[in-house]
Amino acid sequence: MNQLSATLSDGQFILVYNVLSLGLASMLFTSIFLFVARERVLPRYRLAVMVSGTVTAIATYHYFRMFDNFNHAFAGMTGNNPAAYNVGYRYVDWLLTVPLLLVELVAVLALARAAQSSMLNRLVPAAAAMILLGYPGDAHLTVFGISDPGIWGLLSTIPFLYILYVLFIELGKSLSRQSKAVQTKIKLLRILLIATWGVYPITFILAMGATGFDPSRFVAREVGYSIADILAKCLFGLIIFSVARIKSAEDDKEFAKSEFKDE
Amino acid sequence: MNQLSATLSDGQFILVYNVLSLGLASMLFTSIFLFVARERVLPRYRLAVMVSGTVTAIATYHYFRMFDNFNHAFAGMTGNNPAAYNVGYRYVDWLLTVPLLLVELVAVLALARAAQSSMLNRLVPAAAAMILLGYPGDAHLTVFGISDPGIWGLLSTIPFLYILYVLFIELGKSLSRQSKAVQTKIKLLRILLIATWGVYPITFILAMGATGFDPSRFVAREVGYSIADILAKCLFGLIIFSVARIKSAEDDKEFAKSEFKDE
Repeated sequence: MNQLSATLSDGQFILVYNVLSLGLASMLFTSIFLFVARERVLPRYRLAVMVSGTVTAIATYHYFRMFDNFNHAFAGMTGNNPAAYNVGYRYVDWLLTVPLLLVELVAVLALARAAQSSMLNRLVPAAAAMILLGYPGDAHLTVFGISDPGIWGLLSTIPFLYILYVLFIELGKSLSRQSKAVQTKIKLLRILLIATWGVYPITFILAMGATGFDPSRFVAREVGYSIADILAKCLFGLIIFSVARIKSAEDDKEFAKSEFKDE
Repeated sequence: MNQLSATLSDGQFILVYNVLSLGLASMLFTSIFLFVARERVLPRYRLAVMVSGTVTAIATYHYFRMFDNFNHAFAGMTGNNPAAYNVGYRYVDWLLTVPLLLVELVAVLALARAAQSSMLNRLVPAAAAMILLGYPGDAHLTVFGISDPGIWGLLSTIPFLYILYVLFIELGKSLSRQSKAVQTKIKLLRILLIATWGVYPITFILAMGATGFDPSRFVAREVGYSIADILAKCLFGLIIFSVARIKSAEDDKEFAKSEFKDE
């Protein structure tokens, strides 16, 4: 691969290094916590908590790879080869984790089996399509003769809007049957999802116009994606766990007594 | 080993690299999920789920090896030695995992012990024979004086057809005693099995004619095998888990109540 002349300053290198390390630690320990914490909810909510832990575990693997790849590509500030940095890890990670995030959200509601699978049959393919259509734009690849990153960004927005429609209109209907406390948390999850998923296209657009290697755009992209990942996966998974715990206590008075002293 | 003049382009290198990493992550986290998720089915279905997790765990090991071997053979795009890439890892992996995939499928039906072992006594050796006969063709080895990859491909097809016969004719008979929901899932599993196992011979034939190292055939083979592996092992194992869960709920009303809210 061709060496590019532009490179990261020491400060930029340390910033991306620290953010990737923060992402790695957040993912790893959220996973460990969620896998152990599944016992603190009723059996019917455990799959949702396990899927949340699987999402952060998948992301842990990819953050390990990105961290090593970043260190290799920029050779600890002394020499560097930005072209060796592979944004594909993020997209492979998202291809696996984003559909699973939607599975968590639907699973924790413990809807009837038919309603659950009808919702997932639409959300999961839409999430996969959204990620697959974004990759060529972010990696500056020409696929099917399309080389303009903006076109891939636009195509990727179509399944994104469809997901929002399903979450806000369709899921909204089944929310009325949940308790006030659960409704509040689910609404928070949806807002978190929109706010963090909104960071990805903004970051994508910021990085889009670069020709060759642009250090500040590179740093903005890596920092933006990492922070959004931590919110969208770790925080999201922990809220899923707290919804599962509230619903467990609501469903079963004995469980509530054994888990919370005052009830 | 001889250095070959042909090599991968940067785009081809990144494609194979990402696909092998995707395979690795899919296998690893399907394994972890299935091992933990075995608690969510009745004891009689747990072996099927544990075998599914073992299949993807074995594949995780081989994908780690293939990923490292690929990086070593192509030396991060700068120098490369395609002859150092060892397709044998895939065949060792398949020799262990493909018979186990058939064990999963039969185990999840929880047939009578006699019916189960009669079926496995035929499926397991046929699967091993299919893989062993394919290897010399794909690795371009001369064994027993046979050097034409096409002959090995044909020999390998004989046990494959026998497996299809057992799955569709023999297994079909015992399906009538299962519930509608289970029948639908088992038929889906059989179709998934045919569709994904069909990718292997097509990929084999695409790679077969090459003399020396042909980059685009190499990329097609690695991408084809990896995607087929993810579908045939991860997706297959997760559907096995969902069959085990449906059957658990059908067998035991108390279990159904504790796992699904509305039942």
